[in-house]
Amino acid sequence: MKNPAIIGASIPRLDARQKVTGQALYTDDLTMPGMLHGAILRSPLPHARIKRIDVSKAKALAGVKDVITGQDTPQVKFGNWRLVPQSQDELPLAVDKVRFIGDEVAAVAALDKETALRAVALIEVEYEELPGYFNVEDATAEGAGLIHAESEGNVSLARKIKYGDLEAGFAQADYVREDTFRVHAVSHAYLEPCSSLAAPDEGGRVTLWTSTQVPYIVQCLLASTLGLPENHVRVIKLNTGGGFGGKMELRKWEFCAAFMALRTGRPVKFTLSRADELAFGRRRHGMTIRSKVGFSKNGLLLAKDFDVLLDGGAYNSMGPTATFLCGNFGAMLYRYPAYRYLGRHVYTNKPPAGAMRGFGAPQALFAAETQMNMAAHDLGIDPIDLRLMNAMETGDEIPEVATISSCGFKESLVKVREMSGWDVKRQEKRPGYGIGVGCYSFISGGVFNWFNTKYNFASAEVRVFEDGTAHLLTMATDIGQGSDTVLRQILAAELGIGVEKIRLTASDTAITPKADLGTWGSRVTLMAGNAVRQAAQKIKEMLIPVVFGHFDLNQIHDIAFEGDRVFSKARPDKGFGFGECVYKALKGRRGEPLTAFGAYTPRNKGLVSPAFSFGAQVAEVEVDRQTGLIQVKKMYTAHDCGVPINKMAVEGQLEGSIHMGLGYALMEDFVMKDGRTLNTTFLDYKIATALDMPPSESVEIDTYEPEGPFGAKEAGEGLVSPTAPAIAEAVFHATGYRCADLPITPPKVLQGLGRLKA
Amino acid sequence: MKNPAIIGASIPRLDARQKVTGQALYTDDLTMPGMLHGAILRSPLPHARIKRIDVSKAKALAGVKDVITGQDTPQVKFGNWRLVPQSQDELPLAVDKVRFIGDEVAAVAALDKETALRAVALIEVEYEELPGYFNVEDATAEGAGLIHAESEGNVSLARKIKYGDLEAGFAQADYVREDTFRVHAVSHAYLEPCSSLAAPDEGGRVTLWTSTQVPYIVQCLLASTLGLPENHVRVIKLNTGGGFGGKMELRKWEFCAAFMALRTGRPVKFTLSRADELAFGRRRHGMTIRSKVGFSKNGLLLAKDFDVLLDGGAYNSMGPTATFLCGNFGAMLYRYPAYRYLGRHVYTNKPPAGAMRGFGAPQALFAAETQMNMAAHDLGIDPIDLRLMNAMETGDEIPEVATISSCGFKESLVKVREMSGWDVKRQEKRPGYGIGVGCYSFISGGVFNWFNTKYNFASAEVRVFEDGTAHLLTMATDIGQGSDTVLRQILAAELGIGVEKIRLTASDTAITPKADLGTWGSRVTLMAGNAVRQAAQKIKEMLIPVVFGHFDLNQIHDIAFEGDRVFSKARPDKGFGFGECVYKALKGRRGEPLTAFGAYTPRNKGLVSPAFSFGAQVAEVEVDRQTGLIQVKKMYTAHDCGVPINKMAVEGQLEGSIHMGLGYALMEDFVMKDGRTLNTTFLDYKIATALDMPPSESVEIDTYEPEGPFGAKEAGEGLVSPTAPAIAEAVFHATGYRCADLPITPPKVLQGLGRLKA
Repeated sequence: MKNPAIIGASIPRLDARQKVTGQALYTDDLTMPGMLHGAILRSPLPHARIKRIDVSKAKALAGVKDVITGQDTPQVKFGNWRLVPQSQDELPLAVDKVRFIGDEVAAVAALDKETALRAVALIEVEYEELPGYFNVEDATAEGAGLIHAESEGNVSLARKIKYGDLEAGFAQADYVREDTFRVHAVSHAYLEPCSSLAAPDEGGRVTLWTSTQVPYIVQCLLASTLGLPENHVRVIKLNTGGGFGGKMELRKWEFCAAFMALRTGRPVKFTLSRADELAFGRRRHGMTIRSKVGFSKNGLLLAKDFDVLLDGGAYNSMGPTATFLCGNFGAMLYRYPAYRYLGRHVYTNKPPAGAMRGFGAPQALFAAETQMNMAAHDLGIDPIDLRLMNAMETGDEIPEVATISSCGFKESLVKVREMSGWDVKRQEKRPGYGIGVGCYSFISGGVFNWFNTKYNFASAEVRVFEDGTAHLLTMATDIGQGSDTVLRQILAAELGIGVEKIRLTASDTAITPKADLGTWGSRVTLMAGNAVRQAAQKIKEMLIPVVFGHFDLNQIHDIAFEGDRVFSKARPDKGFGFGECVYKALKGRRGEPLTAFGAYTPRNKGLVSPAFSFGAQVAEVEVDRQTGLIQVKKMYTAHDCGVPINKMAVEGQLEGSIHMGLGYALMEDFVMKDGRTLNTTFLDYKIATALDMPPSESVEIDTYEPEGPFGAKEAGEGLVSPTAPAIAEAVFHATGYRCADLPITPPKVLQGLGRLKA
Repeated sequence: MKNPAIIGASIPRLDARQKVTGQALYTDDLTMPGMLHGAILRSPLPHARIKRIDVSKAKALAGVKDVITGQDTPQVKFGNWRLVPQSQDELPLAVDKVRFIGDEVAAVAALDKETALRAVALIEVEYEELPGYFNVEDATAEGAGLIHAESEGNVSLARKIKYGDLEAGFAQADYVREDTFRVHAVSHAYLEPCSSLAAPDEGGRVTLWTSTQVPYIVQCLLASTLGLPENHVRVIKLNTGGGFGGKMELRKWEFCAAFMALRTGRPVKFTLSRADELAFGRRRHGMTIRSKVGFSKNGLLLAKDFDVLLDGGAYNSMGPTATFLCGNFGAMLYRYPAYRYLGRHVYTNKPPAGAMRGFGAPQALFAAETQMNMAAHDLGIDPIDLRLMNAMETGDEIPEVATISSCGFKESLVKVREMSGWDVKRQEKRPGYGIGVGCYSFISGGVFNWFNTKYNFASAEVRVFEDGTAHLLTMATDIGQGSDTVLRQILAAELGIGVEKIRLTASDTAITPKADLGTWGSRVTLMAGNAVRQAAQKIKEMLIPVVFGHFDLNQIHDIAFEGDRVFSKARPDKGFGFGECVYKALKGRRGEPLTAFGAYTPRNKGLVSPAFSFGAQVAEVEVDRQTGLIQVKKMYTAHDCGVPINKMAVEGQLEGSIHMGLGYALMEDFVMKDGRTLNTTFLDYKIATALDMPPSESVEIDTYEPEGPFGAKEAGEGLVSPTAPAIAEAVFHATGYRCADLPITPPKVLQGLGRLKA
């Protein structure tokens, strides 16, 4: 069946006008009468025992209304992995130990921010310093001190995946190679630093406005850390200026705002600075990846052994998921008859790593795709041909993990080869010029319920009105990716009304239907989209009888919802305007409003995701052999996101992904010394600028994902992965320098060229 | 069946703590980034044609962002009586004429209030003055000019009620008297002056935070005056500091805030001053009431002819309802075998009269009860005996209008006689001492649908959660009367959980279920209360099967909801905690939340109200014969409000009613000159102070209203009526001076005593 025209339409985001005119409200825009300003005292040491805290001078400062330490709090541990309580390793404020430079120790609420910061400086803490561990090797070394007493060898958890006969595979192989890759931590660098405002609500309840990807998760964890019933906490997300995985947990300032709001009876706001974000914020996991693959002489993959050490920093954060997903992505894209994975999540005395766009994939795929390119080179097979030979197809299975219900991977490879002029350019031998390929697959939402929700994974409520408008209520979370627009397109498509007719209320845990797990894992379009469709279909079931009844239709008629009308497909004159139809239904229900609930939870979809995206990317580079400087000249992308709901939004995601991939490949890096992050401004922490961005061509492969709404699957995260391996291969093609440790900096290129000593 | 303990409990309002600690937010507390401040240019003339408006100087003033006149608006007329469109006689801003001093002519939005006021002063308007009419006699005189071209004789509408054989009744009567009463306009004098803040919302929508009694009505009328679909307008009521009928319409500054917010793309706030409120605000209808009654010689009422001219001011406002209700209240309390009513609503060039607490009853009952006292005096029958002889009883009918389904009127009379020591005190002849009686009946919400809503009159949504809490969503409107607490008591009673477990979201037209007609006519407890019960009962139907299923109960078991538990009444051990039961139900529904909708619309309840309250009040006064000063020494009240849901709240309503009744009887009055209100501060407009309040004794008569939730009916408005006639009778008893024109001032008393010339 043909999709409605609104599906795939390139309409600007419905919130665009408000954002570009400055009308859109972000959390830090809010002020309230009597509002206090919060500030946090953070640990100056990477690892230490807290001996004594004296807040008396801070409390005595004029204008200070509250000072709290860990001792004042209920000391309930939290963490997103509620399904495994022993993984919950954070306290709202440190009680016995600090584990990284920036660990939260105390908080102040005062009449203004300056006073709060002065009070923080007046808090005296006596520490007993402990040895710090700043990389996975030191942390896991024999005799290393424990960062968390419970975690032997500083490994907080290990995840394994295994299928097929690995030994037989390698024994059969004509070509086996083993490589070690090192990938670094990078920042989400979202434009809006975190901000949270809590206000006491009637009856000992509390409301928190916060910049978050996961209002429901924040609600639940905040309630448990405060010792309140879950529904005494209300979490509201306003506009959120990016998240990329960095805003998907309960954060300690959220707790402090709520806790002090309840103590003082006044609103309390915390807003982080860019320096706070860069110095102490979550970041992508750095990893050490050992990968061994075996091929037949004609290039068929036979076995893969994938071993990963994740540098988790001081706390688990989303590390348990990263540890699993990294192994999952290591097995994606190609048919591995035998696969073994061991991932270990290691504590170090650094800011915790957390979820970040791609979440395990950029690291795993940098290793896997680079190794694929290495093998192609050795085997004398074109890298694209080698991939085509081994590529997954629709219907493939990862044993016990997932079935691939739609797969446009081969088509992506073919298309990107064609559009980039690969076959010709790859043969060219211009000095300094290179062309390389990288590929990706990604999940469309996770099946795993690490948060242990009691509710559906996504929910929606749809209300329709006699003025021809509708109201969509959902706890799904638009953090800039445009889901508030996409979900309305889905509803508009079902009801046959214009998107501009649809009011949306999202991300308010007291109002929007329970529940939605938030924005991560590229889950919103598929999961919340399915929930919206289900609710819309229930609404249609309320309206269809009105048309049958009024026009006395033969039972074989089918009813269409199109162009703000509800009518018989066979006899379009037999029908009503949408609003009129609602009016008649409303009257027939004696005034009971037309409201419907819809939900989605993946069932029988394996262990990982209900659907997978695929794609291939080609990078062209020019390398200055004198300076080692790499210029990316052009990017070509062919990708399978199923049916795109909003082509313009998909293009935006692609551009953003290339931007992040570029930074990951070439320039972004935390400069660390003894656990301290030294580059804490955007002058020192270098993200790509508009001038660094290469021109880009892209094409969407025409697939239809049966599990997705109107055939859609993910488009927002997968594409962040292929850029780094494609650029690395292009640099190799240009220079013969093979990078196995990101980022690819000019000094490394020069070293690779033998022009600079290591 | 015995009601749950929470019904009738004297619990403090659940919002009390927030209010007394200053945490509660009122509209004027809100600020938003970029917010503009509004000011209004009002007519300085009582009646004039607008020849020309020049806003150029105002627009040129630095800091002014918008200036509008009627010409800039869509010029859609509005008014609450949507059922009769020709009654809608107001424009958002005057276009051709102004009709009272204060009529809104233009509006300004500027960076600050001072600039807005300066700009208002720079607007030039050329008027052609027309003759002004300041009382009903002048306005209805032959040859008077028309204030609205459509209304001949300046009578905007007439309402009639007639039953029985009036001529026969009077012919049969042994005693007939005819009197004319004059009652004056008074102010609502709510503590919070009106404030409204509008902000542009995504997609050309607009949100209005406003101090209102009727969010849904404001939504609908604002949408039609703006030319938007109804659901593009969102109206939110925060805490509202009183209304008393004065905040139950769309107000012109609400339109201006929304209209200019959409024009400027910025939030716009209007907040009125006390002087604005007193000079230009709505007020209670002044009336001229001619009443003729006939009795048999032994005191039986035989016929009544009731003729009322209402001074409506410049617009209809709620006048059409007042005109009908006045006639209805004229027929209440006693059995009139024959009754005829003619009410006429007259336009004058004064600020419009609107709804005000009691709404037609204080005027009609001052006349009716005073006349009853006059008749008792003439007939030589004790006033209470005369009333008992004629009093309505449960099951009585007002033909074609209403059936009295519960009536504790006789019991009230007997009780108030006893508690006041009436029989002894009435015989005492202390100089200056007097005791008098007055009675009332009132509606518990209106049956009439003048607003022509498509929805139910009241609606509720109940959500229950596995943490043992619940969420009640309702568009019902607490304006200080305590309904947010009472509705939660009703829900708590049904679900058997503590009130503190219930979150409430009220009065947000985009969120709370459609619809509720707001707070007026003492409708909330009965109507919204019934809606809440219905929703709660649906929730219980979701939970009961869980208990049966889990404990394998015999089908004859009945399930109790008490003490935060759900269990078999016969076997209390067979049951769950409330939250656990919800959890099990939720799991059984595969994560679909437990949500239920309830509604109430009175059906087969006549033309007026589903239920009527009754009561009697006795006042004791001392009159200083030298100065004419009246001191009310004590008030005794016996009243039938059905089963009180919250005794403390009922007491609060009683005290507030006596306070308003006292002001109405003795001191409140607008001093007017040529259409101008001269007393515009609380120093000049005198409301009773705490020191003026007499001690008070009260008792509730034990009735059970079958139509009300848990037997409840109204307690908030009826009691405002008996105070004035009771005091007037007491003054007569003390002095022989009989007041027929409120207020009863010392000069009138002295005139009545012949000590001062009229």
